[in-house]
Amino acid sequence: MFEAQIKVTIKKTVADPQGLTVKHALESLDFQGIDEVRMGKFIIVKLKAQNEAEAKAEAEQMSKKLLANPTIEDFTVDIK
Amino acid sequence: MFEAQIKVTIKKTVADPQGLTVKHALESLDFQGIDEVRMGKFIIVKLKAQNEAEAKAEAEQMSKKLLANPTIEDFTVDIK
Repeated sequence: MFEAQIKVTIKKTVADPQGLTVKHALESLDFQGIDEVRMGKFIIVKLKAQNEAEAKAEAEQMSKKLLANPTIEDFTVDIK
Repeated sequence: MFEAQIKVTIKKTVADPQGLTVKHALESLDFQGIDEVRMGKFIIVKLKAQNEAEAKAEAEQMSKKLLANPTIEDFTVDIK
């Protein structure tokens, strides 16, 4: 059993209104010196696979097909 | 300028209906051998601080006060 940790982030060139809202909310709580906030997803998939390389390939396919939108999002997969 | 990478995950004892829905969606796309899917948030905060320790402490305070709900969520902060 492997644990794939998938981070999905909005591409740098794409606007992130949710991140901007969170930035303003943090500032209203008196946090100073914030340059930028970007919101993404952190997805843990526990899956069976023969080995780590197969688990990673499987999780990358899942990300491409469903978990991330490759037009506006990037993703990285780490296997633990 | 530091980059705080904050991972917010739902505690193991708390149900994650969104994760369950994603698991079923992956299975309907013919992915096999999935044991569990858990959905979380991945938040990047770029902030000014004197040093790495101060940046980490600041990001932990942000997580406790706004970004995570400590009743049902855990969080980890990494400074890059």
